[in-house]
Amino acid sequence: MKYVITIGREYGSGGRFIGKLLAERMNIPFYDEALLTKAAQESGLSEAVFKNFDEQKEGLFSSGMGMYSYDMSLGQKVFLAQFDAIKKIANVESCVIVGRCADYVLRDYENVINVFICAPMEDKIKRAVTYYGLKENKAQSEITKRNKKRRSYYNFYTDKEWGKASNYDLCINSRIGIEHCVDAIEAYVKSIFKIK
Amino acid sequence: MKYVITIGREYGSGGRFIGKLLAERMNIPFYDEALLTKAAQESGLSEAVFKNFDEQKEGLFSSGMGMYSYDMSLGQKVFLAQFDAIKKIANVESCVIVGRCADYVLRDYENVINVFICAPMEDKIKRAVTYYGLKENKAQSEITKRNKKRRSYYNFYTDKEWGKASNYDLCINSRIGIEHCVDAIEAYVKSIFKIK
Repeated sequence: MKYVITIGREYGSGGRFIGKLLAERMNIPFYDEALLTKAAQESGLSEAVFKNFDEQKEGLFSSGMGMYSYDMSLGQKVFLAQFDAIKKIANVESCVIVGRCADYVLRDYENVINVFICAPMEDKIKRAVTYYGLKENKAQSEITKRNKKRRSYYNFYTDKEWGKASNYDLCINSRIGIEHCVDAIEAYVKSIFKIK
Repeated sequence: MKYVITIGREYGSGGRFIGKLLAERMNIPFYDEALLTKAAQESGLSEAVFKNFDEQKEGLFSSGMGMYSYDMSLGQKVFLAQFDAIKKIANVESCVIVGRCADYVLRDYENVINVFICAPMEDKIKRAVTYYGLKENKAQSEITKRNKKRRSYYNFYTDKEWGKASNYDLCINSRIGIEHCVDAIEAYVKSIFKIK
């Protein structure tokens, strides 16, 4: 049986890593940045455009929502291509997809479980300093900024509210440890889809 | 090892029932209304006061927050007695506690896992009509009203936001089935506390 687990996550929560471990446990493919490449290939937009976009997206929402700016127009092309890619992938295989509003994109698909990962600020700071090289004294404001951006991005592209429990099937706070989160999601998914 | 699982929940989500099943699975006591009685006995406030309060609480927040009204003063006594009872219980035994801001009351306790249960409106309506005898044509507005009240109550007594994922360890949407929720919480709790 085919199923998809989408994972939304706060920056610094370890959500991407949880998704990766979960995909390994369930023995299904894992998509995050790889999606970009796949989307690029399938949409006909060149990889150079995506790379350029990825480098520019810092400024995506900097002038209000930037809706009519060159950036947003490029951004919208990229996002729509990603949305297509997510649907194509979900049509053919079970997988874990991190980010990219995949929960919203697949809202009419069956067998989709939507997960959200959050964490206390002190954990996010620790993770961002250790794994993403943020400076300790600037980490908190950077994390807040990035999560505001994720929220804006999500709320703009969907009709739902990022990080609100009722928006997802399962929300887990990773404060208690990454492995325990993976255990819970695995148990939940196996329970729902009757996987031994 | 002693641990407590608190469960916050939307009215109509099945959260109370999930808590009951979970307590049975974990073989630990379950507290909800029983808390009231216990609080009454231990606080010296008579059961008659609690009963009276329970019947009046419909109107608790009806005039703004009613902060200086007779109701609120009675309400505050009852709540504080409940908060004491929650702490006393958490000091002596593992248990599942539903509602009553138990997550906030036990915020400085170790080995506390905070869970929130939500559900889509159509499921809440079905449950409220089937189990709580609400009339179908009035169910949605009644559910909305009751959940607004829970939110107000929670946000008033705590410094946190009801139903926001980052506020809890685990949030589960019961749309997928009560048993699957219990499975996921059980797996999560056992993983964290290394219970076989």
